[in-house]
Amino acid sequence: MQNILDAAIGFSLPHTLEGKTASYIPELSKVDARQLGVAVVDMDGKSWSSGDCHNVFTMQSISKVAALMLAIMDNGEQYVFSKVGMEPTGDPFNSIIKLETMKTAKPLNPMINAGAIAVDSLISGEGVEDKLNRLIGFVRKLCHNDKIWFNQDVYTSESTTGFRNRALANFMKDAGIIEGEVEAVLELYFKQCSIEVNALDIAMMGAVLAGDGKSPITGEVLIPKGIARLVKTFMVTCGMYDASGEFAVRVGLPSKSGVGGGIVAAVPGQMGIGVFGPALDSKGNSAGGIKILEYISKELDLSIF
Amino acid sequence: MQNILDAAIGFSLPHTLEGKTASYIPELSKVDARQLGVAVVDMDGKSWSSGDCHNVFTMQSISKVAALMLAIMDNGEQYVFSKVGMEPTGDPFNSIIKLETMKTAKPLNPMINAGAIAVDSLISGEGVEDKLNRLIGFVRKLCHNDKIWFNQDVYTSESTTGFRNRALANFMKDAGIIEGEVEAVLELYFKQCSIEVNALDIAMMGAVLAGDGKSPITGEVLIPKGIARLVKTFMVTCGMYDASGEFAVRVGLPSKSGVGGGIVAAVPGQMGIGVFGPALDSKGNSAGGIKILEYISKELDLSIF
Amino acid sequence: MQNILDAAIGFSLPHTLEGKTASYIPELSKVDARQLGVAVVDMDGKSWSSGDCHNVFTMQSISKVAALMLAIMDNGEQYVFSKVGMEPTGDPFNSIIKLETMKTAKPLNPMINAGAIAVDSLISGEGVEDKLNRLIGFVRKLCHNDKIWFNQDVYTSESTTGFRNRALANFMKDAGIIEGEVEAVLELYFKQCSIEVNALDIAMMGAVLAGDGKSPITGEVLIPKGIARLVKTFMVTCGMYDASGEFAVRVGLPSKSGVGGGIVAAVPGQMGIGVFGPALDSKGNSAGGIKILEYISKELDLSIF
Amino acid sequence: MQNILDAAIGFSLPHTLEGKTASYIPELSKVDARQLGVAVVDMDGKSWSSGDCHNVFTMQSISKVAALMLAIMDNGEQYVFSKVGMEPTGDPFNSIIKLETMKTAKPLNPMINAGAIAVDSLISGEGVEDKLNRLIGFVRKLCHNDKIWFNQDVYTSESTTGFRNRALANFMKDAGIIEGEVEAVLELYFKQCSIEVNALDIAMMGAVLAGDGKSPITGEVLIPKGIARLVKTFMVTCGMYDASGEFAVRVGLPSKSGVGGGIVAAVPGQMGIGVFGPALDSKGNSAGGIKILEYISKELDLSIF
Repeated sequence: MQNILDAAIGFSLPHTLEGKTASYIPELSKVDARQLGVAVVDMDGKSWSSGDCHNVFTMQSISKVAALMLAIMDNGEQYVFSKVGMEPTGDPFNSIIKLETMKTAKPLNPMINAGAIAVDSLISGEGVEDKLNRLIGFVRKLCHNDKIWFNQDVYTSESTTGFRNRALANFMKDAGIIEGEVEAVLELYFKQCSIEVNALDIAMMGAVLAGDGKSPITGEVLIPKGIARLVKTFMVTCGMYDASGEFAVRVGLPSKSGVGGGIVAAVPGQMGIGVFGPALDSKGNSAGGIKILEYISKELDLSIF
Repeated sequence: MQNILDAAIGFSLPHTLEGKTASYIPELSKVDARQLGVAVVDMDGKSWSSGDCHNVFTMQSISKVAALMLAIMDNGEQYVFSKVGMEPTGDPFNSIIKLETMKTAKPLNPMINAGAIAVDSLISGEGVEDKLNRLIGFVRKLCHNDKIWFNQDVYTSESTTGFRNRALANFMKDAGIIEGEVEAVLELYFKQCSIEVNALDIAMMGAVLAGDGKSPITGEVLIPKGIARLVKTFMVTCGMYDASGEFAVRVGLPSKSGVGGGIVAAVPGQMGIGVFGPALDSKGNSAGGIKILEYISKELDLSIF
Repeated sequence: MQNILDAAIGFSLPHTLEGKTASYIPELSKVDARQLGVAVVDMDGKSWSSGDCHNVFTMQSISKVAALMLAIMDNGEQYVFSKVGMEPTGDPFNSIIKLETMKTAKPLNPMINAGAIAVDSLISGEGVEDKLNRLIGFVRKLCHNDKIWFNQDVYTSESTTGFRNRALANFMKDAGIIEGEVEAVLELYFKQCSIEVNALDIAMMGAVLAGDGKSPITGEVLIPKGIARLVKTFMVTCGMYDASGEFAVRVGLPSKSGVGGGIVAAVPGQMGIGVFGPALDSKGNSAGGIKILEYISKELDLSIF
Repeated sequence: MQNILDAAIGFSLPHTLEGKTASYIPELSKVDARQLGVAVVDMDGKSWSSGDCHNVFTMQSISKVAALMLAIMDNGEQYVFSKVGMEPTGDPFNSIIKLETMKTAKPLNPMINAGAIAVDSLISGEGVEDKLNRLIGFVRKLCHNDKIWFNQDVYTSESTTGFRNRALANFMKDAGIIEGEVEAVLELYFKQCSIEVNALDIAMMGAVLAGDGKSPITGEVLIPKGIARLVKTFMVTCGMYDASGEFAVRVGLPSKSGVGGGIVAAVPGQMGIGVFGPALDSKGNSAGGIKILEYISKELDLSIF
């Protein structure tokens, strides 16, 4: 496994030159675009890593996976999916058009920004702080890392410039999809996006999903099996923005990427994989990270299809 | 003329039953839906009226006409139309879809909400209060009424529930169409919509437009001729929301309606007409008010076509 | 008047270099792009002309005006507008998106291709030939020219390459907007677009519209007044494709352009104007022709606003 | 297995009452809506069945899977996906809106009608007959049934009423996506949709896909492994129209449905499943068929997630 990870890094490093760091969040554009790391955790909790696997980055859209699971655990599947759909979409992650043209303004799925904001409005708690603490607590358990917290500078940067997300949230508020206060939901959303992790953290999270919700370290059930499976389904159909279809063909693993450069992948019954490479392709996915996953999936014949 | 106005009211009153007051702004839904009034001012400043012509109502979208003229006087035509287009649209007044599907996020015209918000961001002044004072001062001159002010309750109601407009403004901020602070522009927009007038006030405003910008009372040039004509063009192509085309066919007069129930019309070289009837049809236009204008236009053969 | 027309040609000729002939219809791309002509007919039937006013060109979208009037004379206003709307649209002339996103697939207005095809399906007659003969007969009367016929080569070229129009027609057939056979309606539409006229012909047609339907030569009523006015309204709100709003501001005359390079304009109660210049701007309007109309409208203060 | 299939039929039969047969293809609306059948073929070629598993039905969209594989075998993956995308879409199967709003008119994926028609234009052969013979020959091999042919009445019915598909094809012809003659491609498409099979036939086809392209009877490689996997990916992300996301959550198997009432499913490495029930739900999927697959997937824990 170690050899494969090292080879994957070697194979993928040149591809980091094809991408660039997220420009629309000022704080993210400053990071070193050449970083690249990978970590794997198997079903016995054994781990391997290579490259910049201890460098931290913000979860961004990867946090949508944790928020969705928490919201379902808080409200039940039925209520959550009365507010957000289950269908993939060919539109970009920040698109607003479907909210207006569909019969209801229900966002198509919980992995696009509109859907994730709607999901955040369902997380239980007294005020933003309490909700955020519950969510970060849950992320810590999934990642088996008690030090996880959010990055204040990135949060400020996102909140100050997040006009498109503010447009989405207000549109859904108008349509009755979001019930609470718009700015409170957005504060939770921007802070959640700014949670800092490293490749090993999310490999651990991937391993929990791969094991249908069980901790590979303690054996504790952290997520009900049904919810773990449901989330993996969304990771296949819409985890990689509007490149999800092509990624499913090329890699074939339930995965979720974030514009911070991370990707979490879950190989059912086998392992979790975490990759980090902040240079993004045109769809917003880690350019080097996709190559790493492609390499590992082919080498080990991991595609679920 | 007095007979025609009385007959127009009689003819149109039953049609108020076909409409209902604006429901999406709570404060507007409370007014008496059976009110109906009309006023006319000719090129010599002579005036006639009938029905509830002294009852006040909020300008709502009628204020877009004044704001556009002030923004052009402040910035020049060229700069204003680098931020907002000149084309009519078949979409509803609060639609966001074109902002996303067009090559630029430039709103199609200054009469839809998105366009009017963009226009408001161009009005000169130090802060919201100064800008609002300048705009209200301009409206007072157009209406020849120094007592005009905005209705605080309606403003609060609009601001508290204006999520769709907040979505539009944030979308345009993200796209670089709006330069200032989003909430400041929205405060100006919501206050401007809440300016209170009566039918006679807007008949006077219509007369100024009919006279290519000259006051029918003092002869003073209040608006440059080119701007007066430009504004009348927009009133024809997009003054009546997405019923502008049909209204042009049936009535044939440059007109602008607001969901407060008012409509201002300008008969080039002849007169201004102000109508008020808060019961709205499905497109957001005064149900009785349209009938009044249809009646007067047919009786006096006023269509510009 | 003669001096004004000569000056208008001189002023506008350089602008023909800014445009190019229609490329999507092969036969149209072959014509000489530097041609430019103008003709005027007043209410007494007196005419003036300058430039290439005897060169023939195909009517293209200008024919939509005649077809609409004939369809209303055949079916009544109410029935025609149950199949096609009255609203302008910010979408390009060959757009299909509104047919899918609106509640009904009814085209927004009779001046876009979809609407014109729907209108053609309403023209009375036994078979395509009979319908075409009726339509050409009507065009001959409007233009006071018995020699008018359609250009077979242009028709063949349009029919062979008219896939977008075929898509629009089939979409409307599926939605029940078009009742007859799709290919028969398209044959009529393509042949009608290929009717050949010159600038004087359409100036005469403009004069008939300017006179509310009366022939300026014989005094005969060729179109009922109500229909003449209705058509002029559409010419203002949607006669110049998605540049109609800007054209209304700059020129302010009911006009209809075609990608053959012609524009017909009607100055209510005063005159008809016909211009021809096959070099088109990016919206599909005659680049030089628009300048001619702008020049004449400003010189003689003809704007209806 | 036999018990499970019998129980699945019993469980699902009441749900046939929730759907109705396809109404937009006249010939399909005539079939008995209460039919329900299922067949399973394992990796050793052993088969089980229950219910109306010998009743024939037309493949409809199920044929898109075979056509896609043949087109890739004819042209290579790269060329095929230069003409059609890989992304799922939240739009209905016959939607045209994305063709206009996306930067290219490339259909989003090969499972929606637009994409399937584009794929058909790539199948090799001299004329429609030759291409159809090649495609039916390939379907016969996949289903291990030499008697398969298309239903002439259904073909005629589809061709006579297929205006929406004609609109899609002409739109793509205009955009250069389809290279050949539009009507020839549509003839192939409509005939392919009319190919008649039964539940056992498609269970066999599913088994070939489940075995990565190998025949479970002869061991012969009928499809290259890479293509078999690629096709299963599309079946997950967009095999069940705009209910693909929800189906992935509920059932979790690569599947493709058709409005004839059939669904083919492939359980990787385990079995193929064919179901038939012509009563369709609102998304166009077999109402009873979905329940059968849900039942079997839960009973045998077959979800790939």
